[in-house]
Formats: sequence, C-alpha cells, structure tokens
Amino acid sequence: MIQITLPDGSIKAFEENVTPMDVAKSISEGLARNVISASFNGSTVETVTPLTTDGSLVLYTWNNDEGKKAFWHSSAHVLAQALEELYPGAKLTIGPAIENGFYYDVDFGDHIVSDKDFKTIENKMLEIARGKHDFNLRAISKAEALETYKNNPYKTELIENLEDGTITFCDHSTFTDLCRGGHIPNTGIIKAVKVLSVAGAYWRGDEKNKQLTRVYGISFPKQKELTEYLHLLEEAKKRDHRKLGKELELFTFSSKVGQGLPLWLPKGAALRERLEDFLKKAQKKQGYEMVVTPHIGQKELYVTSGHYAKYGEDSFQPIKTPKEGEEFLLKPMNCPHHCEIYNSAQWSYKDLPKRFAEFGTVYRYEQSGELHGLTRVRGFTQDDAHIFCTPDQLDEEFKKVIDLVLYVFGSLGFENFTAQVSLRDPDNPEKYIGSDENWEKAEKAILNATIEKGLDYVVETGEAAFYGPKLDFMVKDALGRQWQLGTIQVDYNLPERFELTYKGSDNEMHRPVMIHRAPFGSMERFIAILLEHTGGNFPLWLMPDQAIILSISEKYEKYAEKVLNVLENHEIRALVDHRNETIGKKIREAEMKKIPYMIIIGENEEQENKISVRQHGGEDLGSISIEEFAKIVEAETNKTLKQF
Amino acid sequence: MIQITLPDGSIKAFEENVTPMDVAKSISEGLARNVISASFNGSTVETVTPLTTDGSLVLYTWNNDEGKKAFWHSSAHVLAQALEELYPGAKLTIGPAIENGFYYDVDFGDHIVSDKDFKTIENKMLEIARGKHDFNLRAISKAEALETYKNNPYKTELIENLEDGTITFCDHSTFTDLCRGGHIPNTGIIKAVKVLSVAGAYWRGDEKNKQLTRVYGISFPKQKELTEYLHLLEEAKKRDHRKLGKELELFTFSSKVGQGLPLWLPKGAALRERLEDFLKKAQKKQGYEMVVTPHIGQKELYVTSGHYAKYGEDSFQPIKTPKEGEEFLLKPMNCPHHCEIYNSAQWSYKDLPKRFAEFGTVYRYEQSGELHGLTRVRGFTQDDAHIFCTPDQLDEEFKKVIDLVLYVFGSLGFENFTAQVSLRDPDNPEKYIGSDENWEKAEKAILNATIEKGLDYVVETGEAAFYGPKLDFMVKDALGRQWQLGTIQVDYNLPERFELTYKGSDNEMHRPVMIHRAPFGSMERFIAILLEHTGGNFPLWLMPDQAIILSISEKYEKYAEKVLNVLENHEIRALVDHRNETIGKKIREAEMKKIPYMIIIGENEEQENKISVRQHGGEDLGSISIEEFAKIVEAETNKTLKQF
Repeated sequence: MIQITLPDGSIKAFEENVTPMDVAKSISEGLARNVISASFNGSTVETVTPLTTDGSLVLYTWNNDEGKKAFWHSSAHVLAQALEELYPGAKLTIGPAIENGFYYDVDFGDHIVSDKDFKTIENKMLEIARGKHDFNLRAISKAEALETYKNNPYKTELIENLEDGTITFCDHSTFTDLCRGGHIPNTGIIKAVKVLSVAGAYWRGDEKNKQLTRVYGISFPKQKELTEYLHLLEEAKKRDHRKLGKELELFTFSSKVGQGLPLWLPKGAALRERLEDFLKKAQKKQGYEMVVTPHIGQKELYVTSGHYAKYGEDSFQPIKTPKEGEEFLLKPMNCPHHCEIYNSAQWSYKDLPKRFAEFGTVYRYEQSGELHGLTRVRGFTQDDAHIFCTPDQLDEEFKKVIDLVLYVFGSLGFENFTAQVSLRDPDNPEKYIGSDENWEKAEKAILNATIEKGLDYVVETGEAAFYGPKLDFMVKDALGRQWQLGTIQVDYNLPERFELTYKGSDNEMHRPVMIHRAPFGSMERFIAILLEHTGGNFPLWLMPDQAIILSISEKYEKYAEKVLNVLENHEIRALVDHRNETIGKKIREAEMKKIPYMIIIGENEEQENKISVRQHGGEDLGSISIEEFAKIVEAETNKTLKQF
Repeated sequence: MIQITLPDGSIKAFEENVTPMDVAKSISEGLARNVISASFNGSTVETVTPLTTDGSLVLYTWNNDEGKKAFWHSSAHVLAQALEELYPGAKLTIGPAIENGFYYDVDFGDHIVSDKDFKTIENKMLEIARGKHDFNLRAISKAEALETYKNNPYKTELIENLEDGTITFCDHSTFTDLCRGGHIPNTGIIKAVKVLSVAGAYWRGDEKNKQLTRVYGISFPKQKELTEYLHLLEEAKKRDHRKLGKELELFTFSSKVGQGLPLWLPKGAALRERLEDFLKKAQKKQGYEMVVTPHIGQKELYVTSGHYAKYGEDSFQPIKTPKEGEEFLLKPMNCPHHCEIYNSAQWSYKDLPKRFAEFGTVYRYEQSGELHGLTRVRGFTQDDAHIFCTPDQLDEEFKKVIDLVLYVFGSLGFENFTAQVSLRDPDNPEKYIGSDENWEKAEKAILNATIEKGLDYVVETGEAAFYGPKLDFMVKDALGRQWQLGTIQVDYNLPERFELTYKGSDNEMHRPVMIHRAPFGSMERFIAILLEHTGGNFPLWLMPDQAIILSISEKYEKYAEKVLNVLENHEIRALVDHRNETIGKKIREAEMKKIPYMIIIGENEEQENKISVRQHGGEDLGSISIEEFAKIVEAETNKTLKQF
C-alpha cells in the first residue's frame, strides 16, 4: 500500500501501481470524467502512470492552467499526426503548448502551407480526435530513438543533446513522437480545433539555421468554447490599444525618437492629465504631498539603493559627463529620490506618516523584440508614492491605500478584481530583511486591512519580496483577461540602506517603514488596459471630447458657436465640426471617434433655441434645451465619478 | 580741421588735437561736468586724448556701462596707490574693473590684509581722491618699463609678454602703473569708496603659481549711491533664492542625487504646479494643445536637428543600451520631439497654426563650478511650446504670444521690462537660413507686433540667430537687477531639417514656420528670480500657504478645525498650528514663513464666531467674520490674478 496526499491535506492509502485516474475515480465519477492531467510530487505525470511510492498528488481539469497545458500539448501531437498524414515527407521538429493553444514547427520541404489548407488540417485533426486514441508513454533506448528518426535531422539533434537518462516516446493511434509526457487520457476529449496561423520560424530560433513553418492552433473540449474564443480574438483585435490609440489620436511612436518611447498627442496628453488630476485630488484628501525629482541620479545613488548591483548591467548604461568624470543613470524608479527628500529634514514621530507622491517618469531597458504598444515600453510614468510611517501606522495606511485603489477602480469601471496577498515563507525567515516582529506587524496589517475592506483575496505564502510583504490587485477586463493593476508593497530594505530615521516618543531614533504604492501602476500601461477594457468608450468624465456639434450647413455656424459657448460654461468639453460635409458623413466620423454625444443643429434647432442630441451607438435623445443636455451630462458623469 | 561724428549722426568740425572733453564742452557745460570716459572709432580713449583724424566719438557718463568701467578702473589705480603707501614692499600685479566695482591682486609678502584693515584703506583712498589728481597716460619704451619694475616679477612678466608696440604707463599723484588707458579725468570724481572683501587668487589663475591677495572694492561719484548699493547688497543677501528656498521649504539638493539637480519639496512642487496651471489655463484660451514626450531621444534625432554636431561633445554623453548597440541622449531641448509629433500627421493650411506645448524637463551639462542654486542647473523644466504656422500667420501669432507674456508678467508683479528685438545683419544675408522674403515677413511681423502692443523696445541689428529673428524680454526686478525672461524666436531651420510640410491652398506642399517661445523660460530659473524679486512674498494667488490658524491654546482646537473647514470651502489654502507654544512664538514663526494672513483664535473669537486676522508684516485687520476674511482674500487675489 502507498499513502497519497491530496491538495486538501487528506491522506488516502492505495494499492501500489494505482494511477491518478484510479484515485480520481475513488473520489467521484464526476471528477474522473473531468480529470485530464496530473502531477505527482511536483512533477507532471500521465493520468495512467502507475504510482509506486508515497507522495502528493494533484489532479487537473480543463479549469486549471496545468490541465489546459496538457490538453494543448496533446493537441499538438494530433496536429503533428495530421500534418504527417497530409504532407508525407514533412519533418517534425518541436511542438509545445503555449499560453493560448499550441504550435508545431515543421520542415515541409518545398511544400508551402497557407491559410487555404487550414480547413483540411482541422478536419483531419477532428477525424483523428474522434478515434478516441489513448496516449501511451514508453521508455526507449537512445540507439533505438536515433534509428527511428534517422531521416529527421532535427529530432536526431534533439535526441543527441538529451542527457543520458530515460528517453520517452509517446504513441497514439498510428503516430509516435519524441516526448517527455503530460498528456490527456485520450484524443476523444478534443472536440473543437482551429488552425490560427502560420509563420516562419528558424530552427532553434537561430537565424543562421533553416527556416521552418510554425503552425499555430488552439483546441477546446467544447465547440462553444472555441466559438467564444474566436469571438474574443475578434473583439481583442478591435480593442487593441495600438489600433485605438491611433484612431483616437492619443499617442504615436517615432523611429527617430526611438522605439518604446511613446509621444503623447494632444488628446492623449489631455486624457493622461485628467487621470492624473483625478488621482491627485483623491491623494490630496488622504494627505499626500506632491514632489518633483529629476530623471537622472548619480550611479552612486543606485549603488546605495542596491539597484545598480542587481540591474546595472542589463539597464541603460551610465551617462558620462564630458569633464569631471561623473556618472549618472536614467532613473529606473523614484524611490531613491524620495528617500533623499525624506532625508533632507529631520522628522519626529508626530510628523509621520509623510506621503510623497510624484507622477515620476522612469526609464528601463527592454529588448526591442519585447516592446509592445504602451504595455511594454522603455519609458513610462508611474503614479508613484512612498509613505514613510511608524510600524504601528501600517494598518491605518494600508486601509487608506486600499480605499484609494477601490475608488480608482470604481471610477474607471473595473468591477471584477481580486487581491493577492504575498507573505513570506515562514520556513525560511533568513531570506528576508527586517525583524520578525516588524514582519508580523506588517503581514497582520495587510491581512487585517484586506479583510476589513471586504476584498475578495488569496494568500500566496512565500511570494513576498525579500524586503517586505505586498498586496497586488488582479483585475479582469471586459474580455475576461486578467491584468495586475495596483500594488501596495512594504519595504524594510531602503530605509536601512538610506539610513532613514525619525525620533520616537521615547526620544530615541528609529527606522521608519516605507510603503510603495501605485494604483494605476503606470500611466502608459493603465491607459492601454483601459482602452482595451472600454474599447475606447471611456467613462464620460474621462473622455477627451464629450460632445461634438455637427451643423447641417454653414448657415448655422454662428448658432454652433453659441451652443459651444454655453457648453463650455457648463464645463462640457465639446468640438464643432464646421466642415462643408453631409451630416451623415459627420455622424459617421464622430461615431468612429467614439464621441459620446453628437449635437446636430439646423434651422429648427436654431429657431427653437434647442439642440438635437444623438448618443454614441445610435440612441436619439431628441430635441432638448442646452440646459437639459448639460443636466444629462452631469448626471452621467456623477454616475461613475463619485466623490472620494 | 577734423570731422567728428557724434552718436546722433551729427558731424562737427574741430581743430586738430581737440580732446573728447573739449567736444563735450562745445556741446554743453552740463555734459562736460558729467563726461568721465570716451571712445573714438570704437576704441577707448582718455577724455584728454588729442584727436588727430576724422572719426566717431562717443562720450560716456556714470550712467553708461562704459563710464562705470572707466570709473572703477581708475578707482583700482587709487586702491593700488593706497596699498603701496600703506604696505611698503607690496607687489602689485593686475587690477581690472568688474561688473560691480573692481579688484587688485597684490603680493603682500608676509603681511596679511584682513577686514580690520578695510577702513584704513578706504580712508587712504578717499584722501588720495580728494587730491583731484589728473590721470595722465604716457608712452614708454619696453626697456624703461622693465627697468621701472625690475623688483616686481609680476609686472616684468606682463611687460615681457606684451607685443612690441606702444607700452603705456598711467600717472596720477605720485603713483604710476602699467596701463592701457580708459580713465576718468581726475581722482576727485571718486567721492565714496568701499573695500568689500579679500580673497586668495593664484597669479594668472593657475594654482601652480603663488597665491596672491585679491582686494575687492567699489566706488561711486556720490556717497548716497554707495549707501544705496550697500543696502541693495544686504537686501540681495536676504532675498538670495537659495536661502529663501531653504527657509520656505521649496527645494533642496542631495549630494547622492547629484549637483545641479534640484529636488522639489512639497511646498515648492505645489508652487510650480500652481504656476504651470496658471500658464496652462491662459495657453488653452489661445488654442495651445499640451503634449507629453520622453526625456531621451536617439542620437540620430539630434544629428537630424543639428544639435549633436554643435553641442554633442560638451554635453552629457550618449546612453548606450546593453544590447542592440543603440545610443540615446538626454534631451537638451523639446523641439525635435515636437517636430516629430508634427510629422506624425498630415496637415493642411486650414489646420494651422498647430501650437504644441509641454512643460518639458531637459538636461544640459554645466561644469560644477558654474552651477548656482536654481539659476544654473543641469536639469530644468521649460514652459515650452512650438507654434507651427504659415509665414502669413506670424504677425497674428507674435501678437498672441506677446499678450501671453504680458499677462504672465502682470500677474506676477514684473512691471519694469523692455523688449529686445534681434534682427539679422542686412550686410551679411548669407549668414542666415531661409528666404529673404520670409525674413522680411518675420522681422516685419515682430516689429509690428512689438509696436502695436505698445512695448518699450530696442532693436539689435545683427543679433538674430542664424535660423531666425527673435524677441526677448528684459525684466528689472525689485532690486533693479536685470534678467532675461521670456523669449519668442522664429525658426526656419528645424522645419527644413525635419522636412515639415503642410498642404497650401494652392494644393502644393509648403514648409511651415516654427516659433519657439517660453514666457517663464524655465520653471527653476523663473522661480529663483521670482523669489529674489518678491523676497518670498509671492502674489497671494501663488502663495503655497495663504493663511495659518494660530490657536491661543489647545482648548480651541475644535474651533480651529471648523475655521479651517470654512476656509477650505472658500478655496483658501490654510494651515493650523496646533502646537502647545505661546501665541508670540507661533506668530514669529508664521512671519518667518512669510504666510500672508495669521488667524488668531481664542475664547473671544470662538464665542463670537469670528477670527482675529493679522497680516504678514504686522498690520492688524481686527476681529472679523470668516466670510469677511474670505472676501478680503478674494479681492487681494483678483488684484493681481486677472482674467486672461
């Protein structure tokens, strides 16, 4: 008999050679139907692998990332079989599961596979899947493996590079592949497949090697899930912040200025400023003080902070001066500067907390291949603040920061989020800086605050940074994609390194605790996510242009200006489209620009001193007075932008 | 007879060997009394130098910089004589006039001259001055000169290095000095002298040479002027922006962050932001659009702009990336980035002018010895904007910018300024880029706008940059010191280099003209000047804290909070001083902090629901209601901060 520990901590005894699937069946038939993958003592196993020792078993279904990985890895085998059958002579290389689906890199020889072939490949894959073939992993000698692949130089190279251990093949149906394992029970579970695209890819990613064809695919246990996924892809494409950023004239890039360095156009800069003002106003109510610091600092500053030792080599290199031999770095974060501001005066416990905030632009090197729109850039502005407080103030400060983050999310339409609390690993206290007492205080403060504020949260033990515990907010956007937004982090390290002090009520000098926090994270990334979340239909209070006045003809130019004037007095941001174009064209363009309200004016409107209002998306609000319209805008604004 | 041309263009005939003083006498006795120096055909001459050819003569009085220079140069001779008489054996070296006064570098041997000796030296100087000794320049042979100074190695070295031409000595009283000339008629004009300080100075500025004693002094034609000057020095010391910046907690520097890189503390950051918001609001009314650009750009960007060729070597050196071999520069100006923003879209003449504004932080290398508080820094934020317009729009745009600058000056208490119009040198048209036609248009536009706006202006022909004419504002501060503040500059160069275009009404592509303008110049320098101009007593609308509530005892804490609340509702920025200190001490500290209104509350005030208000500087406004106080603040604010 062997002892199997399950994730809930329960331990069950089984006969030796019991399989994960057997264990699942012993728990419930329903579970057995859904189990598609498993891990034993931390390593991936097949659902049919006989277990021979005591150990911890985790069973995965489609709802786990591990389950999806096995599902897509197995689907790659099915894709490979389909390609081999459809294109005899094609040489397989590697085919892993990826974040969304899987791919296989294939040397098709002279044959070119294109999107015209996708349907054929999908049909072949479904035909194989329907055979409900089991996946069977078997050990094989290196010699035999090389013999099997004697006509495939890629697999031969892979086998030759394998350390001498167990080499395994996986069989299903008539197909065999070199494989380490991690499969679903059989192909029958795969009910829907889609070949997504083909692309060129060099063997082993080296451009000196032969170019292969990478075939991307995705598969699901239900046809409905594939349909939903394809819809999501379509939606995501429409909402791509790079596309919307261009259409809405928010930002641009210039090859002369440099990649990963966004230039904010007027409408984008106004949007940023509005977001900044919104946060500034809320921060002011919580006693934050704005500071301004330079975008460079002496190398020495980052030696003190420890950042240079950790990141110096992989960062933008030091800036030398023409004389005097000084060296500066582009600042990768604002904390060292804020520590120096703290250090510019002497503080008593009565002065704390000090809360220094700055929209601080920082620069971090990223390889050009990793850059992506506004989400991966080389320069970005953090909505940064550092709270310097006594250990006893942590609890209160955490609650305040959570209030602030919830206010930000609420005002911007992020309703779906969870908090992730990262605590230290209690088994390895030596990994962390700061006293036990302080860690306990901080962790208790975070948990207290999280619970008191009613957050939906998970605790990740051992995930704290070496310098302190933290709280991250994981937000789901309108397409169900998850983003990390907003972070609150305790830091015992920088106060040590910068020798920060305050005089306590005992007249002795003490170290303050530091909290790093950024509700947006960075203006660039936040705006990108907000664009994709809202599809460019921002909450009304944030829209660059809230209304556009469309005159039926040039005759009404004067009335249009009058309307504009009244709207401006009501602090409504409006444009006028004076062009000599048809009203239909003007409406279409305003719809494209996602302007929430179109105000159409012609003879009737001028005579009655009214405006005809049409909402973005088509709803007609009819002919109303400008004051009535102003009230509608005010009501809509107050719906999302609450007082803090 | 010779023909003498005077500055007003008139030409007069005189006998040969007429002296400048004779010419002065021929014009008026009053002028003759005041003339202290002269130049003939562009070279300095003595007032007693016989003129032997036709030429242009300029006569200087104390009111000209040239006159002051002669006055102080002559005073240095008197100082030298005094030192020689008081300290026999002292070896004289050089003694020039400087911006404010003069100095003499002397080798006193073993003797040490200190501030205890100043009075004695001044008395000796005045005694010499009262002798009304004429200054007489005479030519001397090199051999004779060397003989005279055979015991003075410094003068010997100077004489030996003189090119073989005329060597001149200047005699007055019993004293002789090696000298090129430029003296006042006689010592009697010097009525007031002050020895200001002594300092060490190496012979010829080389630290390998012997250290000499530099004796600084200043002199005036009237005792009253010396008194005023000393008072000004005292005032300037009190208003030094570095001192005030510290006292008012506006900014600080950190040796770890680096010299010349200010860190803005909360009160300073709030002041900056208020200034920025003030300008933003006015700019918005003029159709400016804010943009945001990164603080670095590829080296290539500055090669395109021409800045790299011109300044690259003397600037912060390029930032290399760890991979990919890219090179970036800290941006020394914002224009190239704004050109790239202009280039990100296509424009028609109907879209112009485009006015892109940014509070853009730029970095320029300065040697550490040249750094000074906020006026000479290595990183600063320009209130920058670039107007892209057609040549025909220049006139209108210049007027608008002048309106904006006048609004800024008016709201900040700068009432004393002149405009300096820099035009091209019409004799060297090849020195300038851009067509004749465009230059004429631009220069006419600037002059038109200057005259139409009623500016007090001077024209500096030949002072334009190679890329365009400009208009600078020269402002006098409360101590009478002159600062260049606010610049408007036409640029034909960058539109060429960045190949900027717009489609004209002729459907052809044209180059726009670019205007650079910055009413403040930079936030750092402007705030420094504003601090020195106002002594920290900013206009009320700008003050970081407008009022402070001082409670007589802790009993009135609650009422203090109530008062604070009402003030905040009136948008008055107020603090509360709750400390357990005497009201006298609280008032003294609030005075130090230059807070405009002190609100004292105690039993009477609470009972009557009133406040006792005391103005900075001492005036008592008595016991009034909070609403009455709010009205006072509003009225005072509206006095300086007008609508634009």
